[in-house]
Amino acid sequence: METQNLVGYKYKNGGKTFQAIDPSSGNELPGEFQSATLADVDATLDLAEKASDVYRYIDKKTKANFLRSIADEINALGEELIERAMAESGLPQARLQGERGRTTGQLCMFADLVEEGSWVEAVIDSALPERKPAPRPDIRKMLIPVGPAVVFGASNFPLAFSVAGGDTASALAAGCPVIVKAHPAHPGTSALVASAIKKAAEKHNMPEGVFSILYDDGYTVGQALVKHPKTRIVTFTGSYKGGMALVKLAQQRQEPIPVFAEMGSVNPVIILPDALDNRYQQIAEQYAASITLGAGQFCTNPGLLIAIKSDGLKKFKNALGEAIAKISSTTMLTPGICKNYANLSEEMLEEQGVSIINRGIVNGEKANQAQPLVATVSASSFLVNPKLKDEVFGPYSLLIEADYEVQVQQILNVLPGQLTASIVSDETDLPKHKSLIQNLAKIAGRVIMNNVPTGVEVVPSMQHGGPFPATSDGRFTSVGTGAIKRFVRPVSWQNWAHDLLPDELKDGNPLEIWRLVDNKWTK
Amino acid sequence: METQNLVGYKYKNGGKTFQAIDPSSGNELPGEFQSATLADVDATLDLAEKASDVYRYIDKKTKANFLRSIADEINALGEELIERAMAESGLPQARLQGERGRTTGQLCMFADLVEEGSWVEAVIDSALPERKPAPRPDIRKMLIPVGPAVVFGASNFPLAFSVAGGDTASALAAGCPVIVKAHPAHPGTSALVASAIKKAAEKHNMPEGVFSILYDDGYTVGQALVKHPKTRIVTFTGSYKGGMALVKLAQQRQEPIPVFAEMGSVNPVIILPDALDNRYQQIAEQYAASITLGAGQFCTNPGLLIAIKSDGLKKFKNALGEAIAKISSTTMLTPGICKNYANLSEEMLEEQGVSIINRGIVNGEKANQAQPLVATVSASSFLVNPKLKDEVFGPYSLLIEADYEVQVQQILNVLPGQLTASIVSDETDLPKHKSLIQNLAKIAGRVIMNNVPTGVEVVPSMQHGGPFPATSDGRFTSVGTGAIKRFVRPVSWQNWAHDLLPDELKDGNPLEIWRLVDNKWTK
Repeated sequence: METQNLVGYKYKNGGKTFQAIDPSSGNELPGEFQSATLADVDATLDLAEKASDVYRYIDKKTKANFLRSIADEINALGEELIERAMAESGLPQARLQGERGRTTGQLCMFADLVEEGSWVEAVIDSALPERKPAPRPDIRKMLIPVGPAVVFGASNFPLAFSVAGGDTASALAAGCPVIVKAHPAHPGTSALVASAIKKAAEKHNMPEGVFSILYDDGYTVGQALVKHPKTRIVTFTGSYKGGMALVKLAQQRQEPIPVFAEMGSVNPVIILPDALDNRYQQIAEQYAASITLGAGQFCTNPGLLIAIKSDGLKKFKNALGEAIAKISSTTMLTPGICKNYANLSEEMLEEQGVSIINRGIVNGEKANQAQPLVATVSASSFLVNPKLKDEVFGPYSLLIEADYEVQVQQILNVLPGQLTASIVSDETDLPKHKSLIQNLAKIAGRVIMNNVPTGVEVVPSMQHGGPFPATSDGRFTSVGTGAIKRFVRPVSWQNWAHDLLPDELKDGNPLEIWRLVDNKWTK
Repeated sequence: METQNLVGYKYKNGGKTFQAIDPSSGNELPGEFQSATLADVDATLDLAEKASDVYRYIDKKTKANFLRSIADEINALGEELIERAMAESGLPQARLQGERGRTTGQLCMFADLVEEGSWVEAVIDSALPERKPAPRPDIRKMLIPVGPAVVFGASNFPLAFSVAGGDTASALAAGCPVIVKAHPAHPGTSALVASAIKKAAEKHNMPEGVFSILYDDGYTVGQALVKHPKTRIVTFTGSYKGGMALVKLAQQRQEPIPVFAEMGSVNPVIILPDALDNRYQQIAEQYAASITLGAGQFCTNPGLLIAIKSDGLKKFKNALGEAIAKISSTTMLTPGICKNYANLSEEMLEEQGVSIINRGIVNGEKANQAQPLVATVSASSFLVNPKLKDEVFGPYSLLIEADYEVQVQQILNVLPGQLTASIVSDETDLPKHKSLIQNLAKIAGRVIMNNVPTGVEVVPSMQHGGPFPATSDGRFTSVGTGAIKRFVRPVSWQNWAHDLLPDELKDGNPLEIWRLVDNKWTK
């Protein structure tokens, strides 16, 4: 495992060092990682900008094979990767094996997307030389990569949203070089994955600078990367505070750039009356599992449950309490996250009208344990207390008890933008609550019926990104094939010499992609 | 002509009044327009938000017919509209008749787009109930409208980018209600077009608030509209200063919103050596016409010409001077714009190394005349003086004389983002300057070969929007069908009850639109 910064193809000595911590014990893990210097930041961006001018023109087959090779090299790291990620994150083996599969799956999905090629949205309008009063020129448009992307690794997905995660895969697929700012909670996992990308890049003779990784356990390197004039785009998954700090930095640049920050969400779940009456036990068990999955450390964790008072709701509350009581605590990602969770969840209990339903079991043998907690509050208390809308990152959920349906809509009306909004309903509920159900799409990027919000599918139809403040820009997704659209902008070529057009726009469709030609979709 | 603010379907008394000015005489025109009050701002947005909840669900055929009726009602205004627009803008009859045709053409283009329906980018991934370890749910995604849009009328397109211009047409097509802040330079033109939209909306029983228009000759109303919490999106065409003021206001909101500001561009044109040698006379005449078209008041006006020193360049310079000398001044849009042009163009002549090539003829019979002006400077002087990169809004262009090709690339490297970048070349030039030609797409939204940049086609392949600071967000276009994408965001429906899905996403494709179903494009 290489603990130095990777600047293009070269490992370089950095400045002060830091070590990863095993959150399950609180002990330091081997490996002295070197924080990057500002000279490293400059060097990576110089290389990335030069690489950009080469990489953007590399043919789609080679680019796809490069992505697939990254997946292969990650698999080739074997158990060393899983063990290091377990030690650094406290996440269990099965979860990390699954996450590795998702990571390599994403790389291969983007490889397929690039190889197929239609994602560039090619549009051709032929010349009309006879048009009066003036002839119409030939115009052709497609998406082109914007240039070097800075990807911040996420603490809660050490594989799938870190060094070779969805952001990196989609940026490389779009044709943008990537500089990863490794998350300081899992530098060893990051270093292993970075070595896999380096091998794949070398194997396919990618230009030096197509990928670099820098370490820092503070904010200096990240801020310098966002402010650097050669950085064209930034992606981030983490807290509202962290995300907005980057957004502001990017807005203050001489040339502002987009920051795609995924910043959190309470993911409201409305449970309708007939569903509660008919299957309160099943819903309670399903949600107890969703609330506590991965120690509740998912952006799509259901932090608010909303229901109308009824006998069914009483039974559900009991069942939820019983289900939570049976669930053991698990290790959180970092001591800091664990401390925040403990503080925030206890603070919630002190708010006016909030009372505890139940807590889970504490595992006393390990450190940094998140004890599951569910609480309850009346809708009227919730509506007058903005603090109760805040996300508590961890295995916590607040059940809001409404007096009638109008209050449920009032709660939705005061919620800020969300990644997801869910409805639990039986067939007989649907006709009675149509407007409520329809309105869910107004506050969220993904609306879900009778499924838990945790569990994000990596498919073209996935929207992972909601109205502010769930994400900084809800018009884009960070999961699924659509994620590639964050790294591009459209360019039109007018009356251009045919031989100098990109292949995607040439006559005869040499790349065999879907194109809109004179207003007809053809391939 | 109604001089009051239109709040939904009702004309309302406003506050202080102002009159339009005929720039060709400097005299006030009839009609006392009433600046809107802050209560009017609130009232329009309350109505718009309520209308949004109805309008978004109106079927696509009705929406399309509403847009077509707006075009019909504009045509029904007849010569009164053209005459008032001529008086308020100083633009000639033929230009305004053409612009009316573009305006109604845009409305009909968006009507066709909405009626066809595929623009919503519907994607369906079917459930995989047998998938291990967990079944995959059914997920379906499409674009939905974001809600009330505020459209700022543009001074330089009193019809095509004002009350019923491209921004309004694309917002209404997307399903967003529109509040227009009328440009104070042409309130009468605005009032006439607003009355056409009102008639069309009433004819099709559109919800009240689908359209409103507010007047103000200051900044209060515009700022209040951008800051209002119910505003979801803003479009603007004008100066960098004006655009960035709105962008900053929108960023400072509790919930930031997108501002699509088109802020200007110098639209560099590179003239290659063989083209200069072979047809300097034709190029000079073509560009003299493009520089002075519409008194140079186009966002795509060619403000910089760049060429390598040669005998051909000398001849071109002479020919350009002769061509400009024959062109008469024309009336600018407003006294303020005219004064700015006179000041800025004269200031340019005082910069180090800048010398005049020639001026056009002054028409002494009319006020607010813009005298055409072309000047020249060496590449080395240009490269050390950032001021020379600034846009001079009007019939002005600066010819930069480079010593060799590398200097041309250096000039491109220091230019900020542009709406367009053009190349004038002969067949024999192409193989000699490939990299220069290829690099043009890196700085502009549209690259053009042997066409002038003025003249923007309204087609699906058009990209009118370039990297910052040409526009606030170069990932979107304000011209062509793509403009609709500014007013939407994607939403995924997961495991949703089939009957409650939007028709666009239902089984059997009842709207007969193109959809990506299980990774295959079908219709």
